[in-house]
Amino acid sequence: MRAVLIDLDGVVYEGERVVEGAPTAIQWLQSRRIPCLFVTNTTSRPRAALVSKLAGMGIQIRASDILTPPLAATHWLARFAPGSAALFVPAATRDDFAGLTQLPEAVDEGAASVVIGDLGEGWAFATLNRAFRLLMANPDARLVALGLTRYWRAAEGLRLDVGPFVKALEYASGRDAVVLGKPSAAFFETALESLGVTPAQAVMIGDDIVGDVQGAQGAGIPGVLVRTGKFRESDLARGIQPNAVLGSIAELPAWWAGHH
Amino acid sequence: MRAVLIDLDGVVYEGERVVEGAPTAIQWLQSRRIPCLFVTNTTSRPRAALVSKLAGMGIQIRASDILTPPLAATHWLARFAPGSAALFVPAATRDDFAGLTQLPEAVDEGAASVVIGDLGEGWAFATLNRAFRLLMANPDARLVALGLTRYWRAAEGLRLDVGPFVKALEYASGRDAVVLGKPSAAFFETALESLGVTPAQAVMIGDDIVGDVQGAQGAGIPGVLVRTGKFRESDLARGIQPNAVLGSIAELPAWWAGHH
Repeated sequence: MRAVLIDLDGVVYEGERVVEGAPTAIQWLQSRRIPCLFVTNTTSRPRAALVSKLAGMGIQIRASDILTPPLAATHWLARFAPGSAALFVPAATRDDFAGLTQLPEAVDEGAASVVIGDLGEGWAFATLNRAFRLLMANPDARLVALGLTRYWRAAEGLRLDVGPFVKALEYASGRDAVVLGKPSAAFFETALESLGVTPAQAVMIGDDIVGDVQGAQGAGIPGVLVRTGKFRESDLARGIQPNAVLGSIAELPAWWAGHH
Repeated sequence: MRAVLIDLDGVVYEGERVVEGAPTAIQWLQSRRIPCLFVTNTTSRPRAALVSKLAGMGIQIRASDILTPPLAATHWLARFAPGSAALFVPAATRDDFAGLTQLPEAVDEGAASVVIGDLGEGWAFATLNRAFRLLMANPDARLVALGLTRYWRAAEGLRLDVGPFVKALEYASGRDAVVLGKPSAAFFETALESLGVTPAQAVMIGDDIVGDVQGAQGAGIPGVLVRTGKFRESDLARGIQPNAVLGSIAELPAWWAGHH
């Protein structure tokens, strides 16, 4: 083991509250110069906002230490779908697509790719229909999903996330989306490439037995589950075998030491 | 054979133009008192509008001679999901749900069923999210789809139809929709019930080898394909074997006579 992939929400913090011992564990990794990449499916906030949030919790990292779906998508598109990308993403995350050639808004043909994020209230019929027309106008256009999350719990109630809109477009266009978010292997592979390690040299720490543990294992990366965030005891009865289960990320240094 | 199910668009008319010989063929069926039900997936227009359209083409039928997804859904809901229905359908078709207990608008819990039609521009994020919350608020609420059409061709370009929104809600809620439109067996069964015949006593005439012919055959009803509407020669190479292929509905009387 030479590098660590760490999920943020549910592992380092739970909403606005830092997980006890998380800053110390991360400082330990940093002091040992163990390459560390934070991988998150968050598409509604840019990396800079996550860096500030962590700083406020006593965790000092750089934006380049975080891999988000927009970043992974930018890498993937440069390689596999060069040309104009039509972005359906919140304004706040547009900076994370720097370097990408973007199709002007309101145009409904000429996209080499159609990138779908969590637009929330931005999903008017005409907006979703424009994404659909862009796909139909070019049989080679790629449908790129920034994750497949079904919904999230906002203060005022449940809210549809990116996944349902991707499914609507897959069905309408008859095309499968490339998913650049956990648990997709393409996302984990982008993370490994950025760290410069093989799957067996890395370990993924997460609180979601499907998205984090099973997703990582699907890409050949050992997956460690923590009992924080969305963890429930029943997760262990779902037929997925984590490579280890820790009380929280605070136990990571001791566990790491035991494996070296 | 004792009764006929007939698709409208592509069989009786093509857009605003009547298919040559269709009025005569239908008059022949009426004069022989052969029970006849027009089955259509149209959810954007009420039955009364279809009756007027046909009258303008020289075809006299009553609203009760037409089975639309709203009608089929009303029957199905009365039987399998009594209670308040939350309707996500165009205002023009609300009359076709007469007799159904409807949940007041803006309420986001308490529905026994959530009925999804082709709302078009009505699909704002908040609207789709309300349908989702209604499903999540009641684990027993049924998701009812008025067809699964992917899209249609409007004057100004392609437009998403009901199907993609149903798929979004199926994915978000983890629930399968009951589809009350062709090619679903539940829809054809409602048609047979209304005619009072067994599947083998009926015949379905349509221009869509999947929605009409394969759908009918899936419910045990012989399916006859016509070479009008959306018919293409390549349809015959798709591995679906129609029970007969006619040039158009004009040939129905001669074909029927040859089978009696």
